[in-house]
Amino acid sequence: MGGAGVTHRTASTNPCAHTVMMDKHPFDLALKLSPNEPGVYSGATSTAYWNMVGPFGGITAATALKAVLLHPALLGEPISLTVNYAGPLADGPFEVAAKPVRTNRSTQHWLIEMTQANAGGADEVMLTATALTAVRRPTWGSEDSPMPTVAAPAGFAEEKPMTGVEWIHRYDMRFVEGAFPIEWKGQGNSSLSRLWMRDTPARALDFCSLTAMADIFFPRVYLRRALRVPAGTVSITVYFHANGAQLGESGTGYLLGQAKAQTFRNGFFDQTSQLWNEAGLLLATTNQIVYYKE
Amino acid sequence: MGGAGVTHRTASTNPCAHTVMMDKHPFDLALKLSPNEPGVYSGATSTAYWNMVGPFGGITAATALKAVLLHPALLGEPISLTVNYAGPLADGPFEVAAKPVRTNRSTQHWLIEMTQANAGGADEVMLTATALTAVRRPTWGSEDSPMPTVAAPAGFAEEKPMTGVEWIHRYDMRFVEGAFPIEWKGQGNSSLSRLWMRDTPARALDFCSLTAMADIFFPRVYLRRALRVPAGTVSITVYFHANGAQLGESGTGYLLGQAKAQTFRNGFFDQTSQLWNEAGLLLATTNQIVYYKE
Repeated sequence: MGGAGVTHRTASTNPCAHTVMMDKHPFDLALKLSPNEPGVYSGATSTAYWNMVGPFGGITAATALKAVLLHPALLGEPISLTVNYAGPLADGPFEVAAKPVRTNRSTQHWLIEMTQANAGGADEVMLTATALTAVRRPTWGSEDSPMPTVAAPAGFAEEKPMTGVEWIHRYDMRFVEGAFPIEWKGQGNSSLSRLWMRDTPARALDFCSLTAMADIFFPRVYLRRALRVPAGTVSITVYFHANGAQLGESGTGYLLGQAKAQTFRNGFFDQTSQLWNEAGLLLATTNQIVYYKE
Repeated sequence: MGGAGVTHRTASTNPCAHTVMMDKHPFDLALKLSPNEPGVYSGATSTAYWNMVGPFGGITAATALKAVLLHPALLGEPISLTVNYAGPLADGPFEVAAKPVRTNRSTQHWLIEMTQANAGGADEVMLTATALTAVRRPTWGSEDSPMPTVAAPAGFAEEKPMTGVEWIHRYDMRFVEGAFPIEWKGQGNSSLSRLWMRDTPARALDFCSLTAMADIFFPRVYLRRALRVPAGTVSITVYFHANGAQLGESGTGYLLGQAKAQTFRNGFFDQTSQLWNEAGLLLATTNQIVYYKE
């Protein structure tokens, strides 16, 4: 990892950027972490990925994963990641610590914590996460969730689903179905969205950007009710079905994302989602539980 | 919580048993925890819930949740739980520690760790988990995952899906679809199971027993391939959609569980599942990622 304070990164030490040039991409700038000691990094929120009352949850989850991927003791590649949002990060510096709590022959278990000094100067826990990384081996396999048959990305217009939210501008989103409501009159009847998505400007896919895109789906309650109800993700889990080579093959192509809720009840609903690349390979499945106010 | 070493529990201090009498149920005996200090408990594995090379994962996940529910600082009820199995518990004592790392106005974030002394006497991390508890408030809601239409539990025979595994005998399972294969000739073509389930002997449902039942589905690779491939859950996430009162209303009735895999690839597959009570209320949705060997 180099000594403390070393911030120059190369392709070999930055698992979330394939070339040094990509350090200039807004995503890589947002994910810039400086090592304090192995597994403990300083970072800062990015206004480029600002949401309503804190950063876009996807960029925060990607930052948690990056702390794991940067760790000198890392074994294998990501298999699962669960991120719990304890409170919204304020605009400014934070610290993220990733600790391998158990390393087996081919699997490794991680605890991740993100802290930020509050107004009184005391460190507060802003995020907790766990991750599993593993060395994958070739096995029998079966692709049991074929990508829905939809027209190619070029056949759909780029849309910005929400206004007044900066991070939306960091993605090219093309809704196939279940776009952000244009009218807010309570006319909703489904929570299903399908959309093509990629970073803008285009950026080669990796585990961090896939993690961020797993959180790209706007709150299902907006769509289901066609009402703008205060809502925010409290916990997200991502299962990575592809290895790094398969993500590399996805390149700068679009991903097809699909999301729907299973139930809305007493202040919380879930979202269950899939992400395929343009070739139809299922890259990740992801679930989240979301708070909503009314 | 009473002082250290106090093991007598009453309904008010044991959230996983509704009456003192239930302390005699095998589930409650398996989940017996003795407080060392607030949030830190001693327990022991139960042969009644033994799996192949360790306890049934569901009982271990339920134990992690129970440590949260027993904590004197608990706020609200469970919303989500993610359990990572770092290694199989050996038959014997263990320690489980639950720590509220952040408490907001109506939500609380938890870290849980289970440790066990290894052969050399050193403590090893056997499980890490995170949980979110919250005070739920009535809101608009929508039940968007109706229970599949199936015949009542009495219409199906009780089956023990696996032989040579003790925990199977702690559940009454009645398969509607996707039962454990009778022949192992690679003839499988679907990973979908639907089954009625409840504790045996019957026991009133609570958050701990619901958590255990979220892990009742045998590895989807057995069904999909109709081959007995070595497999084990590495991480499970449960979203609780019902509150304690709704679980109470479920009583000792059956739950309908549904599970299927989305993909199998290079050593890991996922399982995505739902659990409804007999009245058709969706109580929990759950996902897991499972290692398989070939």
